Amino acid sequence: MVETVRFPDSPMLQGWNTPVRSETEARDLEVVQGAIPAGLDGAWFRCGPEWQYPNRFGQEIFIDGEGMVHAFRFEDGHVDYRCRWVHTQRFELQAKARRSLFGRYRNRYTNDPSVEGASMGTANTNLVWHAGKLLALKEDDLPYEIDPDTLATIGRYDYGGQVKAVSMSAHPKVDWITNELLTYSYQAKGDATTDVVFYVIGADGRVKNEIWFDMPWPAMVHDFAVTPTHAIFPFFPMMTDLEVIKQGGPYYQYHPDKPTRIAVVPRGGTAEDIRWFEGPATTAGHMLNAVVTGSKVELDLCLYQGNCFPFFPTDKGEATAPVPPILTRLTMDLESNSGEFAQKVLLGAPCEMPRTDDRYQGRPFRYGFMICMRGADGTSGVGRLDLETGQLATWAPGANAGVQEPQFVPRRPDAPEGDGWLLALVNRLDQNRSDLVVLDAQDLEAGPVATVRLPVRVRSTFHGVWAPAEALKTGLYDMQLVA
Amino acid sequence: MVETVRFPDSPMLQGWNTPVRSETEARDLEVVQGAIPAGLDGAWFRCGPEWQYPNRFGQEIFIDGEGMVHAFRFEDGHVDYRCRWVHTQRFELQAKARRSLFGRYRNRYTNDPSVEGASMGTANTNLVWHAGKLLALKEDDLPYEIDPDTLATIGRYDYGGQVKAVSMSAHPKVDWITNELLTYSYQAKGDATTDVVFYVIGADGRVKNEIWFDMPWPAMVHDFAVTPTHAIFPFFPMMTDLEVIKQGGPYYQYHPDKPTRIAVVPRGGTAEDIRWFEGPATTAGHMLNAVVTGSKVELDLCLYQGNCFPFFPTDKGEATAPVPPILTRLTMDLESNSGEFAQKVLLGAPCEMPRTDDRYQGRPFRYGFMICMRGADGTSGVGRLDLETGQLATWAPGANAGVQEPQFVPRRPDAPEGDGWLLALVNRLDQNRSDLVVLDAQDLEAGPVATVRLPVRVRSTFHGVWAPAEALKTGLYDMQLVA
Repeated sequence: MVETVRFPDSPMLQGWNTPVRSETEARDLEVVQGAIPAGLDGAWFRCGPEWQYPNRFGQEIFIDGEGMVHAFRFEDGHVDYRCRWVHTQRFELQAKARRSLFGRYRNRYTNDPSVEGASMGTANTNLVWHAGKLLALKEDDLPYEIDPDTLATIGRYDYGGQVKAVSMSAHPKVDWITNELLTYSYQAKGDATTDVVFYVIGADGRVKNEIWFDMPWPAMVHDFAVTPTHAIFPFFPMMTDLEVIKQGGPYYQYHPDKPTRIAVVPRGGTAEDIRWFEGPATTAGHMLNAVVTGSKVELDLCLYQGNCFPFFPTDKGEATAPVPPILTRLTMDLESNSGEFAQKVLLGAPCEMPRTDDRYQGRPFRYGFMICMRGADGTSGVGRLDLETGQLATWAPGANAGVQEPQFVPRRPDAPEGDGWLLALVNRLDQNRSDLVVLDAQDLEAGPVATVRLPVRVRSTFHGVWAPAEALKTGLYDMQLVA
Repeated sequence: MVETVRFPDSPMLQGWNTPVRSETEARDLEVVQGAIPAGLDGAWFRCGPEWQYPNRFGQEIFIDGEGMVHAFRFEDGHVDYRCRWVHTQRFELQAKARRSLFGRYRNRYTNDPSVEGASMGTANTNLVWHAGKLLALKEDDLPYEIDPDTLATIGRYDYGGQVKAVSMSAHPKVDWITNELLTYSYQAKGDATTDVVFYVIGADGRVKNEIWFDMPWPAMVHDFAVTPTHAIFPFFPMMTDLEVIKQGGPYYQYHPDKPTRIAVVPRGGTAEDIRWFEGPATTAGHMLNAVVTGSKVELDLCLYQGNCFPFFPTDKGEATAPVPPILTRLTMDLESNSGEFAQKVLLGAPCEMPRTDDRYQGRPFRYGFMICMRGADGTSGVGRLDLETGQLATWAPGANAGVQEPQFVPRRPDAPEGDGWLLALVNRLDQNRSDLVVLDAQDLEAGPVATVRLPVRVRSTFHGVWAPAEALKTGLYDMQLVA
């Protein structure tokens, strides 16, 4: 029986979102403008979703799809590019059947009976380079280890049996100074469970500490923040209802009448030491950073005053109006007894995919980098926000082009904060291909110092990681903070 | 020292010709229209040139560039796509140096001194599937053997030492009925030599017969024709001058004041049995077919009444005006003593890349398939010429799109001549990608029975070969002629 591969007519599969479905290798990409700075030496790994087959129910949502890993290797003024599927269990099963076998997003009750009990993970969200391993991440499954040179999938990875959670976050933080990996799992004992576990993993890949605790409901916890003393977990009213998913419903429902709760977890403490804070219903995907100063815990994040994922309905089955992501500072005062967090807008215009000079994760910092200036036509630009002055510097590729999440690379391991390059993929909407631009992070408005032409399109990647050449060799980051 | 990879601003590197430079693998291509006929089971291999690096002298001409092999595997209504560089010696040397090391087209005297003595072949022109081997071909070098599944390069191939010529033609003919390979080498003892050798290679890959003879000058002999009794070699006045190339000049020069000479070589004979015919200065790249009826030898080819390669100047260094390729029948009468060939135009409008139902190569035949309707804007279509009625049936993809050389596939091994499918790659000029269309070869005007969407662009491929699934398994074609 011949089943024709054909995608439905859906905006989720058009424009930027048109499937590419190709593994590509291109050596020595053309540098059509400027030159690659000689000091840029390392690999930029990125990860995003791709459509192996049309979803069996025609339910293509942008956070679903099989993981595709991309690598840009910078060396001696040259850039090599490669992308490969992550060969998850799910990918392999579908490849063999030559069709979609998994159903609604994360809902195992909607899968083809032939894949009952199979791992659901797509490894489509992010990558981390830590302790000499490159891991592809999706928050509902364990990581998949990837060969950093060939991008071949090595296998599912549970830290040699050390990790008992069923999944690991796609937003771990590698501390570029201590080489620790700070990560967590939520719904850590399975669908709709309220278990959360916070892990500190040493530079040697050994779990140094873990703190298990309960969240107030079976939330979606896409990202968190860390400081040298605390981990901060926001729990938005985006919840999983086991009965709903058993009936084939959406994995998440937004509860507009429920609060946002934030856990401030002392890194050296236990579940009993957690401090809880509360505020109105909001959601967020991505944290910029967190800093603890005295008793004040400040969490900067792209906050939505409503539901950030309109494809997940409310608990009453209603659709929600889109709301913009606004960079906002939430302040929790550990000395206050009010139990409430305060909100302060940091940037009036919407922005998303916020990143820092990662040496300053959890530490007092000045600069944030992000996607901004998003137009309805798919255009966008990159920005650098100076949190000291409030100034936003931007660069945009212009008409018919938009950017993906930028990546800051320090000019030297001991360069001052924000002194370095900002890498960004540019989607050329009218050319069915992408460019990679290298910007001076301190002078975005001067435009790229190099524009690297990709002959193919890099379909929207969510997140990525920079691994300096030295870290690729030794497994360790050798970075310094500058006072 | 950082050498930036940047291509010059040349029409040879724009539009269709824009380098792709990528190895791609895409499984289960989307069928956006119709359905793949269930009987279409086999591999379509194609070969074309690609720019690994900018030419070291900025001399990019369209017949130069490193070989890229493409495979479309049809099976059970699905199509998988893959393309890979041919890892010639030249490719490997340039990959290591990360720059162009070879100079002007085929001119070894313009190469970087570091590659003196290295093989010059690019394997960029055509492929042949014979005796269980897939060979990538370029007329100035020996074939490179390619793994038909992975497209990995196995190595340079001289038929186990049986072939003494320094090169093999990129236009061999596999006789789909006898499984013999008919091929040749010209300038067979090196640059500017007049040696030609005609080989008959058996279904077992062993050389059954070879005939060495001298051509009247060191010609370019891009293609030839075969019949069960004869091989026909046209020698156009496109010549190599050793002194000119030693001085860094063009490998070929067109001599408008010299004749065209044609050798009719009896397959069972020797050099002494060759009959020679002469006519005015013309050129041609590609033969459609040849048929011997009684004493009449008819050679149908796309003939240019002048220089078909305007980037090769005349022997006086002059540029030539472009002339169109006109499908023409040259007739040589073996009983005539005039020594002249006659010309007759078969189709008034220009066409190129002529192909037959390959079971009928050298045998009385009715149909020719080709690219026709070429517009200055890059548009074109495919045509089927009925030589019995003179009728031309066509299909064109429309605005902003053109086709590459079509491939006829018989519906069954014993289907009547021309009953089957015509495969063609469609270049979508405004989408930076290609489609593959499957047409009913007997009803082109009905439009594709299936349109397969490629997410990437297949840069102009010159030629290709169809290998039925059965032939991929056994190494043998199992085809029949229908009276």
